Amino acid sequence: MEIIRTPRIMKETSKRLLTQGKTLGLVPTMGALHGGHLFLFKVAKGENDVVVASIFVNPAQFGPSEDFDKYPKDLESDIMKLESAGADILFVPEVPAMYPEGFSTYIGVRGLSDRLCGAFRPGHFEGVATVVCKFFNLALPTRAYFGQKDFQQAQIIKRMTKDLNMSVECITCATVRENDGLAMSSRNRYLSPEEREAAAVVYKSLKSAAHMVKDGVMPASVTEHMNVMLKSEPLVSEVQYAGVYNPETFEESVLPEKKYLLAVAVKMGNTRLIDNILVEI
Amino acid sequence: MEIIRTPRIMKETSKRLLTQGKTLGLVPTMGALHGGHLFLFKVAKGENDVVVASIFVNPAQFGPSEDFDKYPKDLESDIMKLESAGADILFVPEVPAMYPEGFSTYIGVRGLSDRLCGAFRPGHFEGVATVVCKFFNLALPTRAYFGQKDFQQAQIIKRMTKDLNMSVECITCATVRENDGLAMSSRNRYLSPEEREAAAVVYKSLKSAAHMVKDGVMPASVTEHMNVMLKSEPLVSEVQYAGVYNPETFEESVLPEKKYLLAVAVKMGNTRLIDNILVEI
Repeated sequence: MEIIRTPRIMKETSKRLLTQGKTLGLVPTMGALHGGHLFLFKVAKGENDVVVASIFVNPAQFGPSEDFDKYPKDLESDIMKLESAGADILFVPEVPAMYPEGFSTYIGVRGLSDRLCGAFRPGHFEGVATVVCKFFNLALPTRAYFGQKDFQQAQIIKRMTKDLNMSVECITCATVRENDGLAMSSRNRYLSPEEREAAAVVYKSLKSAAHMVKDGVMPASVTEHMNVMLKSEPLVSEVQYAGVYNPETFEESVLPEKKYLLAVAVKMGNTRLIDNILVEI
Repeated sequence: MEIIRTPRIMKETSKRLLTQGKTLGLVPTMGALHGGHLFLFKVAKGENDVVVASIFVNPAQFGPSEDFDKYPKDLESDIMKLESAGADILFVPEVPAMYPEGFSTYIGVRGLSDRLCGAFRPGHFEGVATVVCKFFNLALPTRAYFGQKDFQQAQIIKRMTKDLNMSVECITCATVRENDGLAMSSRNRYLSPEEREAAAVVYKSLKSAAHMVKDGVMPASVTEHMNVMLKSEPLVSEVQYAGVYNPETFEESVLPEKKYLLAVAVKMGNTRLIDNILVEI
């Protein structure tokens, strides 16, 4: 695996590969790789000639009170995982190379960015969209891979690439879960053993909600049920949102629809956990 | 000259040309072409294998009280001018193709966009940056050409391409002027004969200011002189700004510096005129 540390060399390398007629699959990550990431690499590997991983903990997508400084970093272990996942190139730029002095451009996606996680993390999706646009312009991927756990992020990035006439195809891959259903996430390692056990309630609430909407229960009742279920777990310190949403607009579903996004964000102590499932009726 | 009307065909055409190893020069315009545009084509022609002109009156960069609906349109005459200027491709998309339903992405350049024209045209530069990013992603130019008259726009676009790691090289070309010094502009045709004559005061104020700063007059005095000069012309109905600025930050110059941007925006009746010159001491 080739390790690239500067934007300039990343772009030169991608241009050369494209000139050779290769297809490039990009998996942008913040490192601290887990099974969810590895599944993205597996899919990318099957669909592209060259797989590029990026690791960059993007300061622009963290709020002032969030966990940027303590976001888990383990580059050595990540490199071993990427080698075995068959990644061909690792792009791991430094923050000043990505945001040099005078940097002042931001990309926003109106509407989609304001709801769900956006309501609790102001500026977060602007930071995400901006850095992903930069990575797309540097790695010039044919395809890019995102996890379904971050469904709102994936939708915002798809909207951005379409709106800005970018060439990359964005692919959302299924969430990978632990045995008890907890969605794999780099932040799970923050959980105490008791919190880790209790965290299973997040997926349980989604599964239970999925049964209810399939049985024809009205969205408002399902939302209430999810909130009751999550709040009944004493280690859940805050339910930021939990409910039944339109997967295109992220607005709360009121009437029966054909497709639902069931989505949850809770805090357990200082750890924020999100998860979602899509249900078609 | 090949005329392309859809974003999809524009991108396919550019990709094919790049694969053939051609360099592409893009001159993005809003049509109503004048000598200033033709100079951009001349420069582009000398530096690229293929010259792409775009004509698109971009609704996103006009405010609700601005002249979007009555912005001059004369496609037939523009096409003749482009043919003689040697443009190879004209890209002239329709508004719904550029902003389809659900469009919701915007690009902003903080700081640079808030000052000078930005202070009088809220959202204007967001509209400019967004549409230019789209044109860059569709026409995939090696180089793109902008006029010095719109210096703030050119600087914002340069900042955007750098910040977003885009590959295009942005080139600013000298302002082309009428015999009396008035900067060529599509909006000049709005002027009545009396206004047209009086409009020469804009460039006169810039030339006079340039002499003063070269003579070592302090920026504040030069700014005052420019405002007095412009306001003494009865057909100038409003001086939006006139003064001595830092060409990197667009902040007002207070102390003597090595480089100045002398810049003016006035209204004559309903017509807004801008102009600027750069001075190095």
